[in-house]
Amino acid sequence: MPTSLSTGRIAELVGGRLVGPEDTPLVGLAPLTRAGADELAFVARVDLLDAIPASRAGAVLVSEGLADRVSVACPMITVPDAYVAAARVLEVFHPEPAPAWGVDPGVRLGRGVRWRGRIRLEPGVQVGAGVHFGADCELDANVVVGAGALMGDRCRLGPGCYVGPGTRLGDDVHLAAGARIGTRGFGYAAGPGPGARVRLPHTGRCVLEHRVDVGANATIDRGTLDDTVVGEDTKIDNLVHVGHNCRIGARCLLMAQVGLAGSTVIGDDVIIAGQAGLAGHLRVGDGARVAAQSGVIGDVPAGSTVSGYPARPHREVLRQSAALARLSPIVRRLERLASADG
Amino acid sequence: MPTSLSTGRIAELVGGRLVGPEDTPLVGLAPLTRAGADELAFVARVDLLDAIPASRAGAVLVSEGLADRVSVACPMITVPDAYVAAARVLEVFHPEPAPAWGVDPGVRLGRGVRWRGRIRLEPGVQVGAGVHFGADCELDANVVVGAGALMGDRCRLGPGCYVGPGTRLGDDVHLAAGARIGTRGFGYAAGPGPGARVRLPHTGRCVLEHRVDVGANATIDRGTLDDTVVGEDTKIDNLVHVGHNCRIGARCLLMAQVGLAGSTVIGDDVIIAGQAGLAGHLRVGDGARVAAQSGVIGDVPAGSTVSGYPARPHREVLRQSAALARLSPIVRRLERLASADG
Amino acid sequence: MPTSLSTGRIAELVGGRLVGPEDTPLVGLAPLTRAGADELAFVARVDLLDAIPASRAGAVLVSEGLADRVSVACPMITVPDAYVAAARVLEVFHPEPAPAWGVDPGVRLGRGVRWRGRIRLEPGVQVGAGVHFGADCELDANVVVGAGALMGDRCRLGPGCYVGPGTRLGDDVHLAAGARIGTRGFGYAAGPGPGARVRLPHTGRCVLEHRVDVGANATIDRGTLDDTVVGEDTKIDNLVHVGHNCRIGARCLLMAQVGLAGSTVIGDDVIIAGQAGLAGHLRVGDGARVAAQSGVIGDVPAGSTVSGYPARPHREVLRQSAALARLSPIVRRLERLASADG
Repeated sequence: MPTSLSTGRIAELVGGRLVGPEDTPLVGLAPLTRAGADELAFVARVDLLDAIPASRAGAVLVSEGLADRVSVACPMITVPDAYVAAARVLEVFHPEPAPAWGVDPGVRLGRGVRWRGRIRLEPGVQVGAGVHFGADCELDANVVVGAGALMGDRCRLGPGCYVGPGTRLGDDVHLAAGARIGTRGFGYAAGPGPGARVRLPHTGRCVLEHRVDVGANATIDRGTLDDTVVGEDTKIDNLVHVGHNCRIGARCLLMAQVGLAGSTVIGDDVIIAGQAGLAGHLRVGDGARVAAQSGVIGDVPAGSTVSGYPARPHREVLRQSAALARLSPIVRRLERLASADG
Repeated sequence: MPTSLSTGRIAELVGGRLVGPEDTPLVGLAPLTRAGADELAFVARVDLLDAIPASRAGAVLVSEGLADRVSVACPMITVPDAYVAAARVLEVFHPEPAPAWGVDPGVRLGRGVRWRGRIRLEPGVQVGAGVHFGADCELDANVVVGAGALMGDRCRLGPGCYVGPGTRLGDDVHLAAGARIGTRGFGYAAGPGPGARVRLPHTGRCVLEHRVDVGANATIDRGTLDDTVVGEDTKIDNLVHVGHNCRIGARCLLMAQVGLAGSTVIGDDVIIAGQAGLAGHLRVGDGARVAAQSGVIGDVPAGSTVSGYPARPHREVLRQSAALARLSPIVRRLERLASADG
Repeated sequence: MPTSLSTGRIAELVGGRLVGPEDTPLVGLAPLTRAGADELAFVARVDLLDAIPASRAGAVLVSEGLADRVSVACPMITVPDAYVAAARVLEVFHPEPAPAWGVDPGVRLGRGVRWRGRIRLEPGVQVGAGVHFGADCELDANVVVGAGALMGDRCRLGPGCYVGPGTRLGDDVHLAAGARIGTRGFGYAAGPGPGARVRLPHTGRCVLEHRVDVGANATIDRGTLDDTVVGEDTKIDNLVHVGHNCRIGARCLLMAQVGLAGSTVIGDDVIIAGQAGLAGHLRVGDGARVAAQSGVIGDVPAGSTVSGYPARPHREVLRQSAALARLSPIVRRLERLASADG
């Protein structure tokens, strides 16, 4: 049976201001264009305003900044950020099932593995010697954790993840299915014969601080001598690659398929959009933004926005792009001129 | 002992027209340049015509459109499409071993898991509560399926795949090793403190319709409220990323390492070549083509071909490229002219 | 208790020339800027020379070419390549734990699986019928090996790897966590109905020669009729994709997220930098270099360096880039000129 909440209860839940009846029953959250009379919709973006008149939603959550542009017949709840409020409501309508705490009999634990309080270890999990977990950690099926790794509280590791030896995870770190953390980096020294290569040992660790998320099938290599570090609240999307010895600051976003070569240092609050690539040994300053698919081969100053390959200030790229667009129709004339001058 | 087929039997098998003796025995299929006297070769592309005289193949399959340009001493079988016919012959020479139907004793099944007819569940498989399979599904070792997922008939999930809770797979869906379907998307709302972020719950599903293929280590996130959908007969290559809420039409091809940000809508019969990236909330019309490595940041009209970054009509890009190539030798002269004019 | 080595012993170990006392005790290797009085540092790059005076390292390893520019109070050991020597020292300070040889009781072995000497098979490993291992192979937890695969000596397969049926691995092949080797390629023939596609059977193998490394979550498809081949000593980084029927030569480097479409042939000693993509059916000559993010759509001559999209000789790209940079400020003038000429 679905959870039912009244408009009044929802307003209370999200700390919002309700205009309209407080006893309208709602059973779920749905997009504005699809919500029915027993569902709540939300308006957090200006481009959704046009869809309001046609919506059949039973009530709407609206961000404060948009509220005076919204006129609806149904109950309306205004909040600072309708997106955040919607997330909160969603958690109540779709509560996560309580974890089935315990250690499956098929789990293999090395010597000296310890945890505080509760833990959930699913079938196929293998944990190396000396691993310590905080409280309430959850490891899905077939996760492998190398010897000596340390985790904080409430870490969640998706199916088939790998966490290499000595890795450190803070509290509330989430790894999605297939993420590979603390694998050996791509480091070789010239070998004895011509073209031969010696695999460089990697003794540095991989450190993910509190509340770091890592997406499905993403890879983060451990350091050679120093550690590879990802700062607090940084979120890493699917299929991202972070090379050995990189240091990423706090609150960064790395979108899907971004690649960082080794030893690059990223400041705090940096956003790197999808498929962008950064060469090794670079520095990216706090608050910088790197556009999608950019190829960064030099340092990026704090607060700047770069794009293109090689990545340059985005404004300059736009100016050059505009010049180029104007160029092609006049090149023929220019050739004539140039030759006339010759 | 290898299977042996006569030229006559092969012609019958592929519905082709045989010119030459019908009793030449053949034991396999091989590339034109490598085939021996007891092997069949095939010619489906015009650039292979030059290699025919030197070939020692025992017989050749030729596409109808090319047949009048082929002159061989050995038996020749003409068919509408030699590539399709070769695939058919290959299946006969190399029949797939019959699946070892059954449920390995090491498999973990949640409550209410059901299937019709036969099933193959290999060791290390974990299936969540309430999952329903159609007939003849095959799950390789260490596959994990979340609660409430539904699959049609003849689905095949490669080693170590993950299928998230509530995912829907049609009939004949194939997932290669390490594919991650229905993982949580990269969705965050601004959190309570500065720079903090709240993980947005994802209650939408991931829906793969009939005959969808997903390549090795590819990732497809589930939707937030709405579903992420991949239409019938669409084929997705290795290491592709599809973000939450994307809707991909029927019969599309997404080549290796393509990335789709969230909520982008792709029509039917669209081809997206390798490493191309599409921003979020875009629309790509039916039959459009996106060149390799393109960066698409705007809508793409039906039937058009785009390339480059930002992606534009391919013809325009070619024209601009040509202008550019002609440009560099004349820039010095232009500078002189421009300054002369100043 | 950490291993302790004297400067004299280290000099002996790396075959270096020691200047200074031979009895200084050292317990580890650390970066120049962080090394303490009981640690060894190393100087293998010219840009590290400036950091030497401030270092508190107990001793330094220095490459011969740099030695006459280094003046230190502490013991100094000169060697042909300080990086290689550092790797050697690191192995002594951090010896790999001896493998726990043996077959876990949870391992599933098909009929006819064989190995020489010792083997390490961790829990969750599944090995198909007829697989043969050389001596001293190590398979981490949850690795899956398809029927008929053959491996040489000392192969190491990381957690959750997949090796498809019939794959051949030489000696000392290392696969990192989640690598997928010998999966079915992205090959389809036009199907019976409009837009329908037939999955092409793949009967070619995937062959990795001696000392090939494959990074985490990388994918290498098997061939259709011919084999996909990776030559001796070639190193492949994380999240790389190699399509069916590719042939890669010896001693190549493929950096993270590189993608190769099908049937492309790469010579020996080729370096392909991160996120570069190569179209199918191309030839790249020996010793060629492909810059990061390049999009290669034509053959690349031996010994050349290409960059950009479409990839061209790097010098030409640089020249064009320079022309472009000079262009934008003069386009307005040029437009005036061009129109004056009209």
